[in-house]
Amino acid sequence: MADNGISRRRLLGTAGATGLALGAAGGAAGYAAAPASDGSAPAGSSSALASLGTDEVMFHGKHQPGITTPMQSRGHLAAFDLAAGAGRKEAAALLRRWSAAAERLMAGKPADGEDTAVARDAGPSSLSVTFGFGASFFSRTGLRKQRPDALNPLPDFSSDRLDKARSNGDLWVQIGANDPLVAFHALRALQREAAGTAKVRWQMNGFNRSPGATARPLTTRNLMGQIDGSNNPKPSEKDFDRRVFVPEDGDPAWMAGGSYVVVRRIRMLLDDWEKLGLTEQEAVIGRHKSDGSPLTGGTETTEPKLDKTGPDGKVVIPVNAHARITRPDQNGGAAMLRRPFSYHDGFDAKGEPDAGLLFVCWQADPMTGFIPVQRKLDRGDALSDFIRHEASGLFAVPGGAAKGEYVGQRLLEA
Amino acid sequence: MADNGISRRRLLGTAGATGLALGAAGGAAGYAAAPASDGSAPAGSSSALASLGTDEVMFHGKHQPGITTPMQSRGHLAAFDLAAGAGRKEAAALLRRWSAAAERLMAGKPADGEDTAVARDAGPSSLSVTFGFGASFFSRTGLRKQRPDALNPLPDFSSDRLDKARSNGDLWVQIGANDPLVAFHALRALQREAAGTAKVRWQMNGFNRSPGATARPLTTRNLMGQIDGSNNPKPSEKDFDRRVFVPEDGDPAWMAGGSYVVVRRIRMLLDDWEKLGLTEQEAVIGRHKSDGSPLTGGTETTEPKLDKTGPDGKVVIPVNAHARITRPDQNGGAAMLRRPFSYHDGFDAKGEPDAGLLFVCWQADPMTGFIPVQRKLDRGDALSDFIRHEASGLFAVPGGAAKGEYVGQRLLEA
Repeated sequence: MADNGISRRRLLGTAGATGLALGAAGGAAGYAAAPASDGSAPAGSSSALASLGTDEVMFHGKHQPGITTPMQSRGHLAAFDLAAGAGRKEAAALLRRWSAAAERLMAGKPADGEDTAVARDAGPSSLSVTFGFGASFFSRTGLRKQRPDALNPLPDFSSDRLDKARSNGDLWVQIGANDPLVAFHALRALQREAAGTAKVRWQMNGFNRSPGATARPLTTRNLMGQIDGSNNPKPSEKDFDRRVFVPEDGDPAWMAGGSYVVVRRIRMLLDDWEKLGLTEQEAVIGRHKSDGSPLTGGTETTEPKLDKTGPDGKVVIPVNAHARITRPDQNGGAAMLRRPFSYHDGFDAKGEPDAGLLFVCWQADPMTGFIPVQRKLDRGDALSDFIRHEASGLFAVPGGAAKGEYVGQRLLEA
Repeated sequence: MADNGISRRRLLGTAGATGLALGAAGGAAGYAAAPASDGSAPAGSSSALASLGTDEVMFHGKHQPGITTPMQSRGHLAAFDLAAGAGRKEAAALLRRWSAAAERLMAGKPADGEDTAVARDAGPSSLSVTFGFGASFFSRTGLRKQRPDALNPLPDFSSDRLDKARSNGDLWVQIGANDPLVAFHALRALQREAAGTAKVRWQMNGFNRSPGATARPLTTRNLMGQIDGSNNPKPSEKDFDRRVFVPEDGDPAWMAGGSYVVVRRIRMLLDDWEKLGLTEQEAVIGRHKSDGSPLTGGTETTEPKLDKTGPDGKVVIPVNAHARITRPDQNGGAAMLRRPFSYHDGFDAKGEPDAGLLFVCWQADPMTGFIPVQRKLDRGDALSDFIRHEASGLFAVPGGAAKGEYVGQRLLEA
């Protein structure tokens, strides 16, 4: 998990390609200054703070928002199950309503009908809404033949302690925003649109650092204090699209421009973790805690020297260090775009913190993304003593809706 | 609850008196521009966004921080119970450690010893830490004679559905910050300092609007969509101190400059509330949802005309409207400073949102603050059909620590 997260500045560099529109406040604070796609002033310019709420993410585009969109400070993940009697027709109507609502809300407009007004006074606040389909959706809607093979169940991992009630689901929604009331408002609005057609199966809340809390431009920290996302694929790399998105001629055709998301609620055993000294923690991760640089030196972006040995003849980056095991060159090139939220749901009955990571990772195919990496982690990751996978989901996230289209239309009206 | 909250601009006006120091970013966005107490540039000035994290609240002062400090976007409330065998001496040592940690953390410095680094890269981020004592603290530490009468148990209210496990406690901690990682870091650091002496009894997480999400200068909205805090006492009013703080010659002497806090976890029955139309909701509250103005007209700050009747001969602001019942002139002058956080802990087993308000109110004496207002609400508040008090706490919050002193020293070393 040392590498969970996203490179904000670098992702921002692809704004034009991924449907991100920026107001005068640009990518907001915490994101380094970058030219906005509409040619307006870069982030960090005068009066940026007062207009944080005006940042708008575009709903329409080749890909859905919320994948390469810069991480937001507040997030909701939710799965819905179709109600008894609801089939393909009702699902299509729901996705049409949801898409219309998402477009309005992301533009900072009230929801249709009686708006709760919770988000009133705020602008779009970088709201993004992303929709996906779980494996069970296809059997419930008579669309078995359209089900991608990529939605085959994830293998069991020995470190899994999965709560089935908080795993999977027919439909998945990801909401992110830089204001918690804007995010909550969107969640309620989408739930209201679902009434009678689908019911919340599970719902989780997450957060990231507030825009402006730190000048650190690239990556964020997780609740272990570790810099997260250093080794994420970068949109500037030539194989980024191939790794993250289903190609235009991909299979099934309705998934063109889409992506597969793996969601894991990863509890951090912080009471145990915090008993380790700094050197022990850094050996578990393989990177320095202070700046994310590899134990073999350099900066956060320096390549680790995996073969380098120390005076004791052992490799400096231990063989079971998390950063070693998760490297693509250790996994046949497997890579995924990690875009997580932290979570903290208070303390459990034992008095231990119910906190950790809502791990959200994106890939063109889980078989060449999450699965091989997690298999390798499962066999010998030093971090596994300090984390517990408590819930899991795998969803097909179709490409972005064109104007006049709704998300999933190419599946539901084929 | 329509009036929960705080007037940010007005409270900011008392910054010099209440120990709030402001960096170049001033009170951060969402707070109207006001001169910083150190004479630096007002909020909203250039590069404010990038320096949100540098805002520092002072630990030392006449009053503890977190009472008149502008509301922060993230909050933790926690109660601790003393461990078996821990008495006055151990409690004094804990308060000394906690005060030292709070002072360091609020200045943006790491905690002593092995810091988790979760907050690294951020500055103070407006962190405030506030400590209080519950009634049970005094019997467990042999300090019964020092127990203020104001800590007598709150009366039972008919609308209470209190979970005792999440109510009261020996010690109370309030943490607020404008960055969730800074707030979480502080919570963990304080919990670590308590190890062996006190254990978490309950802990709750809350949030408010992000700085910068809206230009609205005065008040915020709660999860019902209602503007909150319109009728809060203002530091500019001559009886503000008398209402909120124990006077210098107050009783007991160790509470001079202190305040009493009532904490209520108030669940909002949002599924029911959102079934009401706008006009019905406004009749329940007595104010317009759009701008918080009284139903009798004007703006948010206009005095409501409680006797004004409509064409039907009935009073325009219904007799059971929340805003009418909570007015000081309807309660023998009772008033309290409300400074809440919203909370959202997902959905409960019935699929209903576990969301609402962490109501936090401050007064010189609960007998002339919370208790008479809540008694009146309990008898006929239209809002009571849509809320449920699920947890309750009452704590004595001593005055602020002078330099070289720790919070509660005047009690524990008397």
